[in-house]
Amino acid sequence: MDPIEAVLECNREFYRAFAAGDIEAMEAVWSRAEDVTCIHPGWQALLDWPAVMESWRAILAAPPSIRCVAPRAFVSGSTAYVVCRERLGNGTLAATNILRWEDGAWRMIHHQAGPTHSAAPEVSKPAETALH
Amino acid sequence: MDPIEAVLECNREFYRAFAAGDIEAMEAVWSRAEDVTCIHPGWQALLDWPAVMESWRAILAAPPSIRCVAPRAFVSGSTAYVVCRERLGNGTLAATNILRWEDGAWRMIHHQAGPTHSAAPEVSKPAETALH
Repeated sequence: MDPIEAVLECNREFYRAFAAGDIEAMEAVWSRAEDVTCIHPGWQALLDWPAVMESWRAILAAPPSIRCVAPRAFVSGSTAYVVCRERLGNGTLAATNILRWEDGAWRMIHHQAGPTHSAAPEVSKPAETALH
Repeated sequence: MDPIEAVLECNREFYRAFAAGDIEAMEAVWSRAEDVTCIHPGWQALLDWPAVMESWRAILAAPPSIRCVAPRAFVSGSTAYVVCRERLGNGTLAATNILRWEDGAWRMIHHQAGPTHSAAPEVSKPAETALH
């Protein structure tokens, strides 16, 4: 499989597990490395496997209606990342997902999502919520 | 130099350029690849070098008082990422910076920052702003 397509398939699996509240599938998408990390919107960074998986168990207990939109994958050797939007009801988040090739499969090693505007602000006029 | 330390040094250089409003130093920190990407807080993802650098020129025209706190670096071969907090006045952002080893130096290929709480929320009780 083309690496870009394989990375996007892992990303799709992540959002399938997310929307379905399927904690087993979510765990399977992630690397087994101890130092996986995650920044949920508004949260402090979570910096190890137990903290990340505890967060997913809490979140997936009431899974949101989430949909990944416009994913773009970037591959550099055995590491890749995806930039995408997440549709949540009427809101939109922007997300970064980092993946690593491990044991014959792409696995998630980091996720960050944060609020964004549905329309792109003028770059020359940063929106008020754009703190930098 | 230890790879972790070299990655953290690139990350420091990024925040030095950011706080100083030094667009030349900021451009030097970034990869020259066309497909660098960036998600500023509240913004849509920027998906190529011209858009990313135009955003930095706009932001660095009035550089914020920004300080990187508690950076943690993770290296996988020729790709690395840093998870850190950004102090901006009384506010705190959480950030992901992805770097790639290019032409003998670590260079930034992606940056995302988003709002966070100064205190870590209980994982079992996601804060209201934690949309997932």
